[in-house]
Amino acid sequence: MPRITQRTRILKLTADGGARRAEDAVAGEEPLEIRIGGRSFSVTMRTPGNDFDLVAGFLVSEGVVSHADHLPAMIVCAGDEPGASSYNVIDVTLGPGAVPPDPTMERHVYTTSSCGICGTASIEAVRKASAHPLPESRTPIGREVLLALPARLRRAQPLFERTGGVHAAGLFDAAGELLCLREDVGRHNAVDKVVGWALRENRLPLTDTILQVSGRASFELVQKCVMAGIPAMAAVGAPSSLAVELAKDSGLLLAAFSRGETINIYAGTRHVEV
Amino acid sequence: MPRITQRTRILKLTADGGARRAEDAVAGEEPLEIRIGGRSFSVTMRTPGNDFDLVAGFLVSEGVVSHADHLPAMIVCAGDEPGASSYNVIDVTLGPGAVPPDPTMERHVYTTSSCGICGTASIEAVRKASAHPLPESRTPIGREVLLALPARLRRAQPLFERTGGVHAAGLFDAAGELLCLREDVGRHNAVDKVVGWALRENRLPLTDTILQVSGRASFELVQKCVMAGIPAMAAVGAPSSLAVELAKDSGLLLAAFSRGETINIYAGTRHVEV
Repeated sequence: MPRITQRTRILKLTADGGARRAEDAVAGEEPLEIRIGGRSFSVTMRTPGNDFDLVAGFLVSEGVVSHADHLPAMIVCAGDEPGASSYNVIDVTLGPGAVPPDPTMERHVYTTSSCGICGTASIEAVRKASAHPLPESRTPIGREVLLALPARLRRAQPLFERTGGVHAAGLFDAAGELLCLREDVGRHNAVDKVVGWALRENRLPLTDTILQVSGRASFELVQKCVMAGIPAMAAVGAPSSLAVELAKDSGLLLAAFSRGETINIYAGTRHVEV
Repeated sequence: MPRITQRTRILKLTADGGARRAEDAVAGEEPLEIRIGGRSFSVTMRTPGNDFDLVAGFLVSEGVVSHADHLPAMIVCAGDEPGASSYNVIDVTLGPGAVPPDPTMERHVYTTSSCGICGTASIEAVRKASAHPLPESRTPIGREVLLALPARLRRAQPLFERTGGVHAAGLFDAAGELLCLREDVGRHNAVDKVVGWALRENRLPLTDTILQVSGRASFELVQKCVMAGIPAMAAVGAPSSLAVELAKDSGLLLAAFSRGETINIYAGTRHVEV
């Protein structure tokens, strides 16, 4: 059975010539295959745990589902051995209103079939696919709330404490209270797990929330926010150019280099209460 | 045309109430579509630059090519506009000896078709796909060399200096001299760019080298080393459980939490000169 952490023997070397054997906990990583109606859709490496959330959130990010009704059933596939479960294959049944993926298409919604793939086309693809456009008029988010989130995220990370090496995504309400936290070796998985939790709790779109992530702000993470109707994202690390462009185009408040004492706002400045 | 960095206007907030407008450089991110013989194979978000290296390395990682002869031609697709080039689509011609991907298969080599996908199957898939198995008998790597690499990597990172937010992969020889450094918003892309450079320079397998990466050590990065015949990898961040398992199974020296003063060896301890 997949494990969230695993113990392993290591050799610790130090610059002063020290060398000693020790035991260390590492974050679990296992492949997860997502099937739709028995047909393989995607394989992702992830930290086992909250797998139904991961599948649900991944399908939101890919534009396949946008409401709990679209996902009436998920089952863990039986393994090859009689009576065994593989734990690593989840088969999904789509309900009415879901948008089954085109089998001739690439996995990502920002793929185009013409020889003109570019950032602009990627941004347009996300806009077309999103069922939860962000409202222009909304309650601004306070500076103090934004500045407080990285420390709150870190305090709530049990797996990081044990392994020193997983990403986290934390969903907070407008007052900065934690609604849901997920950890994973893949930062995109951590966000998918949060979004999937919300879909399954019937909370989409995630109006008046802020997603704080432990890593950098890539296009893919901004896309996940936009698809789930999350109006604000803050990242501890740096943003990429296309993340900033997609955020501006979608009306997302995008903050990065969120370090507690300082924070940079890259998009949606008008949604911050300075 | 895609840019390696981009300037953007930001708002900097500080805990003491400060708020000022500033200009910031962010790392470029654009989609790149890889086609094989005109047929779409994969789309990845990457920092533009060294794109032929990225494509070549990605195809090594996926087991499609393992020698420069397998990749006789790569061209940048013409754009939709007359005379324009999209820069973001590269079409590859495979030569004799290449292993064209099975169009019915998922992209990743560790995908299995049975309902028994697991870490062990993923490891076996990499072993079967690798054209460059690591020799058991090889020159050990010195402790001082390993400890010196993170600082050397950081000093050689021009893009990180400008943006504070890209990953790097640096290939070093056994004496710790830098052979090739590549940066990208995606850490897997940075490694693919290094491996692709080596393929195109006809240097595979990369015997007696060490790959130092700026981020964490995931299964995917260890897979890329194994596919390219790189015998040692060191990561600044933490390893995952499956990365450790694949490294042990493949005979790779895997070091992590490589911080200059200390380093942890997770696999292949016998290949370190303590």
